[in-house]
Amino acid sequence: MVASVLDGKACASSVEESLSPRIDNCIKSGITPHLAVVIVGDDPASHVYVNAKIRACNRLRIKSSHIQLPESALEIELREVIENLNHDVEVHGILIQSPLPNHMNEEALTDLIDPRKDVDGFHPVNLGRLVQSRQDSLIPCTPNGVMRLLDWAKIPTAGKTALVVGRSRNVGMPMAILLASRGADATVTIAHSRTSEIKAQCQQADILVAAVGRPNMIKKSWIKSGAVVIDVGINRVDDASDSRGYVLIGDVEKSTSEIASWITPVPGGVGPMTVAMLMENTVKAAESKIQW
Amino acid sequence: MVASVLDGKACASSVEESLSPRIDNCIKSGITPHLAVVIVGDDPASHVYVNAKIRACNRLRIKSSHIQLPESALEIELREVIENLNHDVEVHGILIQSPLPNHMNEEALTDLIDPRKDVDGFHPVNLGRLVQSRQDSLIPCTPNGVMRLLDWAKIPTAGKTALVVGRSRNVGMPMAILLASRGADATVTIAHSRTSEIKAQCQQADILVAAVGRPNMIKKSWIKSGAVVIDVGINRVDDASDSRGYVLIGDVEKSTSEIASWITPVPGGVGPMTVAMLMENTVKAAESKIQW
Repeated sequence: MVASVLDGKACASSVEESLSPRIDNCIKSGITPHLAVVIVGDDPASHVYVNAKIRACNRLRIKSSHIQLPESALEIELREVIENLNHDVEVHGILIQSPLPNHMNEEALTDLIDPRKDVDGFHPVNLGRLVQSRQDSLIPCTPNGVMRLLDWAKIPTAGKTALVVGRSRNVGMPMAILLASRGADATVTIAHSRTSEIKAQCQQADILVAAVGRPNMIKKSWIKSGAVVIDVGINRVDDASDSRGYVLIGDVEKSTSEIASWITPVPGGVGPMTVAMLMENTVKAAESKIQW
Repeated sequence: MVASVLDGKACASSVEESLSPRIDNCIKSGITPHLAVVIVGDDPASHVYVNAKIRACNRLRIKSSHIQLPESALEIELREVIENLNHDVEVHGILIQSPLPNHMNEEALTDLIDPRKDVDGFHPVNLGRLVQSRQDSLIPCTPNGVMRLLDWAKIPTAGKTALVVGRSRNVGMPMAILLASRGADATVTIAHSRTSEIKAQCQQADILVAAVGRPNMIKKSWIKSGAVVIDVGINRVDDASDSRGYVLIGDVEKSTSEIASWITPVPGGVGPMTVAMLMENTVKAAESKIQW
């Protein structure tokens, strides 16, 4: 078997297409969707991500503001930025690019964002609504993107066994909740660094989502034949032969495509979906401001 | 093998003992912990639960208020009750006994409770903080009680496979999150009505938590030898031979005790733990009012 490619770029394009008339409608109603992206310091990967987000805004006629603070900025300065954005009626989405410098308390700063503008979906109110399976939450972009990709490729999840490897608050945990929720209806297992038989767990999974952040951690020999493999990992690995000096490697061995039924490429799989869901959350936040 | 009994009554007593000096300290600081319980209508099981909670308050010198509304009360009346309790500086915990009448929107009413007084732990802010593994959340009482019971009996969870049967927002989902979180470190599977091979799932579980609400749904033959069995179900089943006209039956067949290593009785297992965790949440909410 050679796996079909779960083409995140193509799916993201179709999401962007579906957003276009919604954005038209906002603009006609006098509301131009507006995303503010805040970045602190000079992490090169962060700048790549932020640029991709701003390019997507430009394609879609979503207004974007890019606020750059130096690595040495004080937490109180970032707090002031967030509070100003919360109060700015022309801003609909606020994104604080992770990671923040070590001297800042990322959790406390996320708490400060108005949940209605929390287009990353990381605020406890939005995570809690996810546990409640509510429609009025802003869902974290990466797990939401994975769900959309499965849906787009018409991959059924109901009654399937799904394994989520990784239990981060922003990806693994919400991913497991979404897959287990009514409508998706998968039987979901959450595995992590303390899981004793990770290989055996992988071998049972009809759907495997890897969100660990360790290059090639999951081996081809661990994968059930015909499984659907979603690789959330985008790991920079030094490579002198590459003109950038690094290559991007997923959490799953590439040769897994020889045994899976579907697999996401890295890059071009989950990454573009994350950006597309960010755009969708921004539009959703803007739409909530239209007076009917 | 005959399973040891996971004695929820004994564990709850030890929790109450540990709360006693904390309550003394509150009272010395001029703050008497105070739980307000609101009940709407005449559901007989609800009245039994509310009475158990009020008796626990009395044992512990926690002040309790019991607010009774008729089945016919309007949602707006309950809203007013909640808002008054939110503003009452002498009330530290607010509990709306479930179920509410069908004409009320339970979710919208839960949203209305001040999260700092949400001793049930059902508000999205508290559920979201649970996803974030935070210390400043009020954790839903039943899953928190299960974790405490395991800890009390020195039953290790790290690296174990745990199966949670049931995905309710207030029990199953938070239970899975707690078991998978750092510190507990179980490899957790969430099963539900759409799970295709529930028997096979049960047979693999070192720790099984049943939270379905269907009497005797989980069979002895499904249980792995030596497993730890936690039965959250408390189902009323008509029984003319019983003086009350009903008996209480768990979600798990009683004979499972012949094969498990540990098992919670029904009643006397998880039930008392739920009440004890409610008392602990009330004390925690009161303590946060002490001026240091």
